[in-house]
Amino acid sequence: MTTTTQIRMAAYPVGMPQDSDFETATVELPELGDGQVLLRTIYLSLDPYMRGRMSTAKSYAAPLQPGDVMLGATVCEVLESRAEGFKAGDIVLAYTGWQTHAVADAEHLRRLDPQQAPVSTAVGVLGMPGFTAYAGLLEIGRPKPGETVVVAAAAGPVGSAVGQIARVKGARAVGIAGGPEKCRILTETYGFDAAVDHRSPTFADDLAAATPDGIDVYFENVGGPVTEAVVKRLNLYARMPVCGLVAGYNATERPAGPDELPGFMRRVLTLSLTIRGFIQSEFVPTHYKAFQQDMSGWIRDGEVNYLEDIVDGLDNAPEAFRGLLTGRNVGKLLVRVGEDPTGKDL
Amino acid sequence: MTTTTQIRMAAYPVGMPQDSDFETATVELPELGDGQVLLRTIYLSLDPYMRGRMSTAKSYAAPLQPGDVMLGATVCEVLESRAEGFKAGDIVLAYTGWQTHAVADAEHLRRLDPQQAPVSTAVGVLGMPGFTAYAGLLEIGRPKPGETVVVAAAAGPVGSAVGQIARVKGARAVGIAGGPEKCRILTETYGFDAAVDHRSPTFADDLAAATPDGIDVYFENVGGPVTEAVVKRLNLYARMPVCGLVAGYNATERPAGPDELPGFMRRVLTLSLTIRGFIQSEFVPTHYKAFQQDMSGWIRDGEVNYLEDIVDGLDNAPEAFRGLLTGRNVGKLLVRVGEDPTGKDL
Repeated sequence: MTTTTQIRMAAYPVGMPQDSDFETATVELPELGDGQVLLRTIYLSLDPYMRGRMSTAKSYAAPLQPGDVMLGATVCEVLESRAEGFKAGDIVLAYTGWQTHAVADAEHLRRLDPQQAPVSTAVGVLGMPGFTAYAGLLEIGRPKPGETVVVAAAAGPVGSAVGQIARVKGARAVGIAGGPEKCRILTETYGFDAAVDHRSPTFADDLAAATPDGIDVYFENVGGPVTEAVVKRLNLYARMPVCGLVAGYNATERPAGPDELPGFMRRVLTLSLTIRGFIQSEFVPTHYKAFQQDMSGWIRDGEVNYLEDIVDGLDNAPEAFRGLLTGRNVGKLLVRVGEDPTGKDL
Repeated sequence: MTTTTQIRMAAYPVGMPQDSDFETATVELPELGDGQVLLRTIYLSLDPYMRGRMSTAKSYAAPLQPGDVMLGATVCEVLESRAEGFKAGDIVLAYTGWQTHAVADAEHLRRLDPQQAPVSTAVGVLGMPGFTAYAGLLEIGRPKPGETVVVAAAAGPVGSAVGQIARVKGARAVGIAGGPEKCRILTETYGFDAAVDHRSPTFADDLAAATPDGIDVYFENVGGPVTEAVVKRLNLYARMPVCGLVAGYNATERPAGPDELPGFMRRVLTLSLTIRGFIQSEFVPTHYKAFQQDMSGWIRDGEVNYLEDIVDGLDNAPEAFRGLLTGRNVGKLLVRVGEDPTGKDL
């Protein structure tokens, strides 16, 4: 009999998730049924959207219930299989959440080839974050050569991919990040044309200097004061794919006034702006195959780079998750829950 | 020598335009040059967008300068012509603004056929307001059969066309207007499926009752509290063409808090909303011909009705314009500046 150690949501957080909002339990897993596999978690992906699921606010997905295992994409090793096409030792992309082991239906798994790419990229640049950047930028943002694309949280896995894809498409890429170290990474590692530190007291002026021709695409994944500064520089017909608003995820009350919505809508009207919220899953049926081909090619050709921030041990997931929500990490945040048998060089 | 009496913008209004923001002058017109015609104004169109041009806020069009003739579309009679293809007695669509006469380049004119449709419709249901409804609803709103389309200022020339086109396309049309008389017109004259009075203390509940399946398209031309109530009922993937925000056109300061923008953006994200500002001119090259054909056909077949609110005398234009901004008129607001020689039955 195999057991799994799980981290569950104990209660809906009010504001930043506290340790008391999580609980750890070790339980026995059921016997394998036909078509199922037993999985051991190698990497757990931590992503901002998880905060949204820890809330009962109306959304595109049902909220977690107290007592549910925290959800999340994982890279796992198959320990035992009763499913055709899967055998012990296979590495798979799964969605088994914050736990060490799981029994999963094989139909929801995708087998990974460690020879093609490091398996951790299946939850990063070659997975959901990379696809979010690809689909949102190309299908909604639609940058033209010479246009200016701005993205915030630019040192993160979505933002860094947005900037690099923008450059592949011939656009000027401007990244916004917190602090000089992240800004250095934007230009040196990711090849952004310019980087702007939103913590600087001269942020608004720096942004203006970095976008002399205004902004044609703002890839929105942050919200808050950064967005307000960006919106003032949007050009006629600018496009704004909205895939996240991490600055407000822990908000417990509506911010004080003045009310910025009427002014925002006036810009939407007078500049013929397009604001479009999206979840990457909307574009999976139509664009995922092209994404895999394009992104693999860009990585191979050195046009897209990526960084990973790997935290060891499932116990550290809550603290790492809080860091994610406050911008502490650089690169794709992963928890290494168990040994990586593909011997990836970290 | 012909003279013209003009109403000019004397100063940028602060809030609602006052009489002192306008000035009247009578001046001599220049001699006709080659390719020009002398025009006598029959109808002047009054439209909310004019308030936006009386402001230096960044916009899609240059602002009026103090001393400029108030702008606007007109239906005119040609008194004298030095342009090929135009002769005295022709009725034309022009853009000569708030004045009794003008000299205009013929290349900017469109000749109207009084046998085809009342000439006043060239600035109404068959002109800019009708085309705004057509392009915004069909190109941005894209209603599917069975979906729910909501429009505010629904008794106006844009809103009434939106609702009727929505019904042509098989959608449920719900109109919002101020007061029971306008609401009665919505269902009786324009055939809306339901009408909701935004002045009613039970407005939010009435809107919910009128949209039992939520809202798929909100055609935005008002802003303010009406919009806030509508947004709460938007469905996943709802679309919001934004062609006007008349509720805020006279605002002199940012409204007090709380700040509604973060909550609005959260809905954009979690419901994958599309918000798209537009000016009808964007779609003229691609859609104007189809609009003329479709709309003429719908009027002929009785699928689209229209009402006009005609004020006599150029002197009354400022007061009529203020009424437009506060929702006093019903139907397309026109100023009859001079006699209509087509003998239209009013």
